[in-house]
Amino acid sequence: MTTTTRRKKAPLPQPRGEAFVRGVLEVALAQLAEVGYERLSIPAIAELANVNKTSIYRRWPSKAELVRDTVASAMSHSNDAPDTGSLRGDLIALTRTVATFMQSPAGAAIVRIMLAEGSNPEMRALGDMAYREASGVGPWAVVKRAQTRGDFQSKIDPSLVLFTLAGAMLHRVFVEKRDAPEAFLEQVVDLVLEGAAAKKK
Amino acid sequence: MTTTTRRKKAPLPQPRGEAFVRGVLEVALAQLAEVGYERLSIPAIAELANVNKTSIYRRWPSKAELVRDTVASAMSHSNDAPDTGSLRGDLIALTRTVATFMQSPAGAAIVRIMLAEGSNPEMRALGDMAYREASGVGPWAVVKRAQTRGDFQSKIDPSLVLFTLAGAMLHRVFVEKRDAPEAFLEQVVDLVLEGAAAKKK
Repeated sequence: MTTTTRRKKAPLPQPRGEAFVRGVLEVALAQLAEVGYERLSIPAIAELANVNKTSIYRRWPSKAELVRDTVASAMSHSNDAPDTGSLRGDLIALTRTVATFMQSPAGAAIVRIMLAEGSNPEMRALGDMAYREASGVGPWAVVKRAQTRGDFQSKIDPSLVLFTLAGAMLHRVFVEKRDAPEAFLEQVVDLVLEGAAAKKK
Repeated sequence: MTTTTRRKKAPLPQPRGEAFVRGVLEVALAQLAEVGYERLSIPAIAELANVNKTSIYRRWPSKAELVRDTVASAMSHSNDAPDTGSLRGDLIALTRTVATFMQSPAGAAIVRIMLAEGSNPEMRALGDMAYREASGVGPWAVVKRAQTRGDFQSKIDPSLVLFTLAGAMLHRVFVEKRDAPEAFLEQVVDLVLEGAAAKKK
């Protein structure tokens, strides 16, 4: 993972190493958004990524394994902990990231995997995995920092606050199918934070 | 729609009138839950409901039209307005109904239609319709009554309260895939209601 490798175009017709992984995951994510999990095809991904499908199978023996890495890579943002100086500001930043992600084609595809039915065990495992990725360390770090600062003095379990905000974003983007402008984010964060503040520790 | 017709078993091999409609919608809902919208088949529904498929097509010329009535009939609960004497009690009752619905196979199938992608115009129209049905008059009647009683004195738009609660249920049932026991319903209703109360009119 040297800067040189990153800057130069891959000198070989077949990308290798990090460039190979990055290229395949990028194409897999775009395909996931375009055709969904069921119709995702490794040969098609190989062609679009300009690699041999055997190279893909060598690293990811199954479609589920490839999608697992694709989802993990696409959701790395869930580990980011914004630091605006206040819990309110941090939660607004987090809900903004979540809403933007849900509104992107790739994000929407991943949320649909997360919500998928439990009847297919492969889909269920993927959904669970996507959910674990979505519950990254970012939001918890934000809450922890607020608690240390004395900015969250509530008897309420912080997970109720975070999950309620995530649910409000889900409803807004997927049920109402509406945009989530700044004024909306502020309103919903205030609603939940003031509700939490009412239950003083 | 006489009581007699309801109590007696249909005297004819093919149910007619109200019994026909009720029977087909019941089977269509069960099939929707079992196989999903894409694989829903009118001939299969006809066989299971013991009616001719031509009779189904006469009333519902397309699958989309049949599913529209199926969804509307399955979501009639969204017009119920519980009346427990307090807004808190009413909202707990409403969230209980919503969570129970989401956890039923038919409810889950309908929510998935509601969340479906917008790329297929037929699915998009069905999703919009399911959303309209879900936004029945019940919750609004509950809020209206609370406002008249002076039980909701908030500058917050009541739709933010209702949608945040619906979102919290969505997250709980479809993302966390957890049950929604009474203690959880009370916590989330209190969180949102106290948040709303903090913004006094």
